[in-house]
Amino acid sequence: MQELYPTKEHIEAAHKRIKPFIHHTPVMTSKNINAMAGAELFLKCENLQKIGAFKYRGATNAVLMLTDAERQNGVATHSSGNHAQALALAARNNGLKAYIVMPENSSKVKMDAVKGYGAEVITCKPNQKAREDTLAEVVKRTGATFIHPYNNYHIIAGQATAAKELIEEIPSLDIVMAPVGGGGLLSGTALATHYFSPKSLVIAGEPANANDAIQSMQQGKVVEALPPNTIADGLLTSLGDKTFGIIRKHVAEILPVTEEQIVAAMRLVWERMKIIIEPSSAVPVAAVLANKAKFSGKRVGIIISGGNVDLSKLPF
Amino acid sequence: MQELYPTKEHIEAAHKRIKPFIHHTPVMTSKNINAMAGAELFLKCENLQKIGAFKYRGATNAVLMLTDAERQNGVATHSSGNHAQALALAARNNGLKAYIVMPENSSKVKMDAVKGYGAEVITCKPNQKAREDTLAEVVKRTGATFIHPYNNYHIIAGQATAAKELIEEIPSLDIVMAPVGGGGLLSGTALATHYFSPKSLVIAGEPANANDAIQSMQQGKVVEALPPNTIADGLLTSLGDKTFGIIRKHVAEILPVTEEQIVAAMRLVWERMKIIIEPSSAVPVAAVLANKAKFSGKRVGIIISGGNVDLSKLPF
Repeated sequence: MQELYPTKEHIEAAHKRIKPFIHHTPVMTSKNINAMAGAELFLKCENLQKIGAFKYRGATNAVLMLTDAERQNGVATHSSGNHAQALALAARNNGLKAYIVMPENSSKVKMDAVKGYGAEVITCKPNQKAREDTLAEVVKRTGATFIHPYNNYHIIAGQATAAKELIEEIPSLDIVMAPVGGGGLLSGTALATHYFSPKSLVIAGEPANANDAIQSMQQGKVVEALPPNTIADGLLTSLGDKTFGIIRKHVAEILPVTEEQIVAAMRLVWERMKIIIEPSSAVPVAAVLANKAKFSGKRVGIIISGGNVDLSKLPF
Repeated sequence: MQELYPTKEHIEAAHKRIKPFIHHTPVMTSKNINAMAGAELFLKCENLQKIGAFKYRGATNAVLMLTDAERQNGVATHSSGNHAQALALAARNNGLKAYIVMPENSSKVKMDAVKGYGAEVITCKPNQKAREDTLAEVVKRTGATFIHPYNNYHIIAGQATAAKELIEEIPSLDIVMAPVGGGGLLSGTALATHYFSPKSLVIAGEPANANDAIQSMQQGKVVEALPPNTIADGLLTSLGDKTFGIIRKHVAEILPVTEEQIVAAMRLVWERMKIIIEPSSAVPVAAVLANKAKFSGKRVGIIISGGNVDLSKLPF
């Protein structure tokens, strides 16, 4: 699986490649929220994507880019989150084996979901070194191809297709937004916007409590995330060199939001739009509401990254 | 406003009349839930309707059926629920006054929502007699036309349009389902199914703790609801003579479900489909899951009545 920096043609090809497998998710709007924001918001609902998150796009593209030789031995990754389910389902839907390394303290619900998609789950101690060591063992034993959750150009090209669909459906967006964690969604969104709607500005939202991407932009190098303390559990990871390179070039600004702003924005979308979005998805919505002057009168597209929340642990 | 028993042509006319005002809501499906149910479920998402419930359909139709003389004095009702908001918004969108009698212990959020739609809210003691007396005073004072929340043929014809849209989009349904409270949605659903998909069976779900409609069917007359004790707060009312007459004729069966089954079905839809449905909407979903043999292999359309829940008081 050769990785090349995603061009416009690569993203178009990725979209064509994954279309038979993904949901074309709807774009939703709310007059009430627009009135509160003083802007027109267009929410691209990847919470309604398969496995409940955009991650299925990238995982599917990566799996479809494997060579015939690589397909024989399947794919592997370490993840306790949406990438684990996304890769497991993408592998199953393409007749491949998947090996998912998960921390032993992962919730039973998540492990069962991954197993339910037919993947082999290998548990490890809940720390980064154990995850990487265990993954290395699994790759050595099985010959599976490691699919990184975000620092992989095929993953990035796959995630880019969400913004591509949004831009095709809603013309003349002034701004396109996404949250930022490891940067797979944001870098894909930034590339798609650059290629397919070059006049639109790309702005990200990031939890103030996990602001390593903001620091990375300021310092011009990847800054590692501190032990993060945010409800936005999809945004805990640090940027990779590939995602940072794209974000640095094509993202105008990253806006920090507080935990209270994230919870309030999440609740607002649940109450007014009747859709379940996860805290990470509420981050760019919160950024709009916290910076009204910046967005006043603008047409703003927002990638709603996912809807996987633990209903037993809601913040309200 | 003359009321006639809704014919096929009345429902077609109602649909044409309200179309410029309502959302054409989507039909959603879930492979996971279908696998659990052993049936194909098609959810008509009236939780995504304006004001978050199907009630806006009927209220809009009733408002549009007023004579010019009646329009001068506006509309009135008593309601602490979705009908209050529906009538308030339907009146505002048609340039009419609305007077809504609400029990003084109604939540501030609900009162503010009704006021936000420009209606005049008149509070009363929280019992049925006070509600009716206060409404009578308001009607006498203002000359407004009383719009009953369900026992009104224009309301019923409006609610029928949800099932009409579902039937037009999803052909060959074996069964069409709705929850039953006062019976406005169920009687409209039954009529639309009778006229537009006569081979489909209409089956309702009802909380076992508020099973007055089941009793009414058994006894052949309207049985009043006991002081009800169910989480499905949209289904507390008793049938009216108009809704009962239609339901008796065109509904094959009403299935009771327990409180636990309602909460489990609501949670399942939230988790798997990422949409917020209120407990009342979960009732027919729960009825399918509790009666698998009856629905096995069938194509089942379900009207999801609404998505208005108090996020501070969730049952999980």
